[in-house]
Amino acid sequence: MTARNDYEPLSEDSLRARIGAIADVAKRLGNAPEDWGVREVGDGNLNLVFIVDGADASVIVKQALPYVRLVGDSWPLPLYRAYFEHEALSRQAVRDPGSVPEIYHFDPDQALIVMEFLSPHTILRQKLIRGETVAGLADFLGDFCARTAFRGSELSMDSGAKKADVAIFAGNVAIPAITEALVFTDPYFAAEMNHHTPGLDGVIARLRGDVALKIEAQRMLQAFASNTETMVHGDLHSGSLMCTDAETKVIDPEFAQYGPLGFDIGMLIANLLMAYFSQPGHRDETACADMQGWILSVIDGTRDRFNTEFRHLWSSERTGMLYPATLFEDQGHDSTPACDRVLKDLWADAMGIAGIEMHRRCLSLAHNADFEDIEDPAIRAPLEARNLMMGRELVLSRFDTDLPGRIGAIARRHNEENFL
Amino acid sequence: MTARNDYEPLSEDSLRARIGAIADVAKRLGNAPEDWGVREVGDGNLNLVFIVDGADASVIVKQALPYVRLVGDSWPLPLYRAYFEHEALSRQAVRDPGSVPEIYHFDPDQALIVMEFLSPHTILRQKLIRGETVAGLADFLGDFCARTAFRGSELSMDSGAKKADVAIFAGNVAIPAITEALVFTDPYFAAEMNHHTPGLDGVIARLRGDVALKIEAQRMLQAFASNTETMVHGDLHSGSLMCTDAETKVIDPEFAQYGPLGFDIGMLIANLLMAYFSQPGHRDETACADMQGWILSVIDGTRDRFNTEFRHLWSSERTGMLYPATLFEDQGHDSTPACDRVLKDLWADAMGIAGIEMHRRCLSLAHNADFEDIEDPAIRAPLEARNLMMGRELVLSRFDTDLPGRIGAIARRHNEENFL
Repeated sequence: MTARNDYEPLSEDSLRARIGAIADVAKRLGNAPEDWGVREVGDGNLNLVFIVDGADASVIVKQALPYVRLVGDSWPLPLYRAYFEHEALSRQAVRDPGSVPEIYHFDPDQALIVMEFLSPHTILRQKLIRGETVAGLADFLGDFCARTAFRGSELSMDSGAKKADVAIFAGNVAIPAITEALVFTDPYFAAEMNHHTPGLDGVIARLRGDVALKIEAQRMLQAFASNTETMVHGDLHSGSLMCTDAETKVIDPEFAQYGPLGFDIGMLIANLLMAYFSQPGHRDETACADMQGWILSVIDGTRDRFNTEFRHLWSSERTGMLYPATLFEDQGHDSTPACDRVLKDLWADAMGIAGIEMHRRCLSLAHNADFEDIEDPAIRAPLEARNLMMGRELVLSRFDTDLPGRIGAIARRHNEENFL
Repeated sequence: MTARNDYEPLSEDSLRARIGAIADVAKRLGNAPEDWGVREVGDGNLNLVFIVDGADASVIVKQALPYVRLVGDSWPLPLYRAYFEHEALSRQAVRDPGSVPEIYHFDPDQALIVMEFLSPHTILRQKLIRGETVAGLADFLGDFCARTAFRGSELSMDSGAKKADVAIFAGNVAIPAITEALVFTDPYFAAEMNHHTPGLDGVIARLRGDVALKIEAQRMLQAFASNTETMVHGDLHSGSLMCTDAETKVIDPEFAQYGPLGFDIGMLIANLLMAYFSQPGHRDETACADMQGWILSVIDGTRDRFNTEFRHLWSSERTGMLYPATLFEDQGHDSTPACDRVLKDLWADAMGIAGIEMHRRCLSLAHNADFEDIEDPAIRAPLEARNLMMGRELVLSRFDTDLPGRIGAIARRHNEENFL
C-alpha cells in the first residue's frame, strides 16, 4: 500500500509478458501468450481494462492508473485502490455468493487484478439506454444490497473483526475524497470542474439557493464520512452492474469503504431513476412508456426484496452485538419494532443519498450516459430538470416513513412536469 | 501494540529502578530514587497509579494492568490501551491547551505513562459528594467538550489526517467493547455482572419492559460503534476530572475512540445529574438545596458554554470539508442554520447518551460513588429511582429541540418524586 517503484501501466504487448508469467492464468487461457487476443476496453475513469482471449478461456485484466483517466495526470490517484477493490470483492463474494466476478490473481505492486470475463454480459446502463430488460434484476439487486449491508455490519459481524476491517478501509482516503467532493458538495455551488446542460440555469439556481437542501446534503456528507455501519460498494450505479437478459453481476468496488447501511441501495435507486427520466430521449412514446414502467417495477421490486431479505437476515443471522436476542427475544420481546426502526433510519439515509446522486450526475463532474447520450440539449434539459427536482424532493422528504413506498408515484408525477 | 514479553506490573520497589533509569524524570524529581516517596493510589478499575515524591517535584506513574482490576484476572484487557491514552492526551493537549496533565515520559512496552502530578487537585466526584464547589467548572467543561469535539472532527481537521487517525484508534477494540456491553446493553436485561440496590425492582422492571427505550439504547449503541465524527474522551465522568477550588483538569482518556460529537458532553451531564440526585444522601436539607442548586447551575453553564464555544469555532475555525464556507458564506448564505442543525443532532445524541449513562451506573457493573457511598439502601433506592426515571425521559425525548434547555426543570421535577 506504499510506493510501487516497479509499477508500469500495461500495454497490450507488456500484458502478454506479465500475464504469461502467471502460471495459473496462462494455463487457464490455454495457448501461448503471443497468440492471445488482447483488447483494451476500459471506458471508466480510473483504470485500464483488457479482455484477454485465449484458446480455452478469456479473462479480464484490470489495472489501476495513477491518475483520474477522465481528467488526466493533473489529478493523481493512489494505486492502492486496487488493493481495496480486491479486499472488497473478496468480502462481497462471501456475503452474497455468486454476485461478483471470480478473482484469478491479484498483484498489489502492479495494482492489477485478473478476474472472470463476464460474457455475454453488458453494462446495465447501456442496456437501459437501449431499452433492454433483465429478468430477475430487482431480486438480485435487493438481495445484494441487503446481504452486503447486513452481513458487513455489527448486526452480524463480530465487533472486533469489524473494527479491524474499519481500520483497513480507513486507509482508502483518496477515493472516498472524490465522492465527498464531487457528490455532496460540488453540485451545490459553481465548482470549477462542474458542467451542465444549457437551459437548466433556472432550476440549478433554485437548488443552489435552497439552504435547507444544502444543509441536508452536508448532513449526508457528515454521515458518509463518519458512519462506518457496514462495508459499502461505494459506487453502485448501473455502470457497475453487468447483465445478460437474465443474470446480473456487480463489478468495480474500488470505492469500497465503511459507510451508512443505506448508501448502496440509495445510489442504486438514484441511477435507476435517472434511467427512468432519460427514457424519452432514447425512444418513441410507446416503447418509452413500456421501458419506464419496467424500470419503476425494478425500483419497487428492489426496495421490496431488500426489505424482505433484510428482515429475513435480521431473524436468522443477527449474531452481532447490535440489537441482540438477549435483549429482545430472550426477554419475550418481539424485535420487529427494532428492525422497523433500523430500516427507517436506513431508508432515510438511502433516500438522501439517492437525491444527492441525482443532483451530482447532472451538475458535477461525472455525468451519466443515460442523459449524456441524448445529443440535443433541448431534449435533454427538461428530462434532467425532472430528475433534479425529484432529487430535491427525496432529500428534503427523506425522513418521511412512507417515502420509499412512494418513489414510483413521485417519479411519475415529475415525469409529467415541465420545470423549464 | 502487540505482545510485550518484558511487561511487568510495577511494585513500589521496582518503580524506583525503572523510573530512576529515565534521566529526564529522575532529574525532575531531584534526589536519589531510594529516597523518593512512593504511594500506590489507584482507585480506578484498570490501572496501577503511583504518586512519586522527590525532593524537587512529584510525578504520577500510571501503568495499565492486563486485566480489569475490579473483576480480577478473569477479565483480561490489552495493555495497548496505554498507547491510546498517550495518543489521546497528546491530541487533547493541542485541542484544548492546559486541559490535561503534561506528559513527561511514555513507555509503550511497560504500558506506562509518567505525567504531571496535579496538586492540590482532588477527583471532582469526591468533591461533589463532600459538597465542595469549583469556580469556573462550567466554563472549563463547556470549552473542553466543544473544543475537543469540534477540533477533532471534519468540521476542522483535514479529512485525510482524520481518516488516518480513525485507523489508529480502530485498533482500540477491547476498551470500547467494555462500554458497548456495560453501558448500552447490560442495563436493559438481567446481565450476569449486573447488580442494583434492593427496592428498585419495580422501577427496573418498568425500564426493562420498555421496548421503545431498549430500541433507542441500541440505536445509540449503533451510533457509538459506527459513528467516527470526532475523537472522544470516552469516559468523561466526574471521576475523570481533577479539581482545586478554582481549576479543573481532565484525566484518564484510555477509553478514547472516534465517536459521536455529543458523546462526552452527554456522559458528563449524566454524571453531574447523578451528583445532583444523590445529594440528599450526603447532607442536610439546606446544604443539599444549595449544593443541588449549584450542580444544576454547572449543568446549565456547561451546556451554554459548550454551545457558545462551538458556535465560535464554527465561525472562526471551520476549515474542514464539512459545511465549507464555499457552500455557504461565499454564496452569500448565512451558515447559522447549518450550525443549528449540527448542534441539534449533537444534542440528540448527547441526551441519549446521558440517559443511558444514568441507567448503567445504577444497573450495570460499575456504579458511582455518588450513590454507592450512601450506605442505607432505603435512602439510596428512591434517589437512584429518580435518576433512573429521568434517564428514561432523556432517552425517549432526545430529539426534542428544547430538551437541553429543560434539563434543570426535569431534574427538579424528578427530585420531588417518589417512584418506589
